[in-house]
Amino acid sequence: MKKASSKNSCDHERSSCPVACALDLLGDKWTLLLVRDMFLGKSRYGEFLKSPESIPTNILVDRLNRLLEASVIEREPYQENPVRYSYKLTEKGLDLGPIVINYVRWGEKYIAGTKASKNAPRDI
Amino acid sequence: MKKASSKNSCDHERSSCPVACALDLLGDKWTLLLVRDMFLGKSRYGEFLKSPESIPTNILVDRLNRLLEASVIEREPYQENPVRYSYKLTEKGLDLGPIVINYVRWGEKYIAGTKASKNAPRDI
Repeated sequence: MKKASSKNSCDHERSSCPVACALDLLGDKWTLLLVRDMFLGKSRYGEFLKSPESIPTNILVDRLNRLLEASVIEREPYQENPVRYSYKLTEKGLDLGPIVINYVRWGEKYIAGTKASKNAPRDI
Repeated sequence: MKKASSKNSCDHERSSCPVACALDLLGDKWTLLLVRDMFLGKSRYGEFLKSPESIPTNILVDRLNRLLEASVIEREPYQENPVRYSYKLTEKGLDLGPIVINYVRWGEKYIAGTKASKNAPRDI
């Protein structure tokens, strides 16, 4: 059941190519940075806002909702009144690890002055 | 020299994180599809336009120019009067292979109904 619910029915906005469909969800400047943050152990709204890229709040809310809807992440309340949530990667989200790690490798190799977080996972 | 010229001086638009800097160049819905097309053997403007996602011509021109400027691809004329170019991945672009392949794997696993081209490389 979990498998089925985490598998998008994706209406194939542009084509049935898996790369195109993945980019329909992940192809922007921010989404994979949230995934990165969760790999680095961040889980709360305020933590995502503190990342060095300074994600705008409206984009943060939008991307969290899109990732929730796609079952890439899940949330649970850590506080009531007002309710606040912590977010974490699902199995589907954890399977983005190789993509994030390969972005780290490629960026470090080809973009001068970049440096991965010392907490960044190095191996797939 | 080649190494130096293919290494972006990237002004670190948002941070010095290699993922963020890579996404400053590659983080959109179209750029990696052109990289995918070149992995599939496409090299000419008209071939990119024929891909199933129907990339708009203004976006195609913009992304080719950005990839050229970043030395992810290079071009050479295959015809004069009028001059027309063919495009191919540089070493820097070929090093995006693991990212593209992992998008294929992730998309096929999690997005129903997707299917990679039979010409798509499977191994890194």
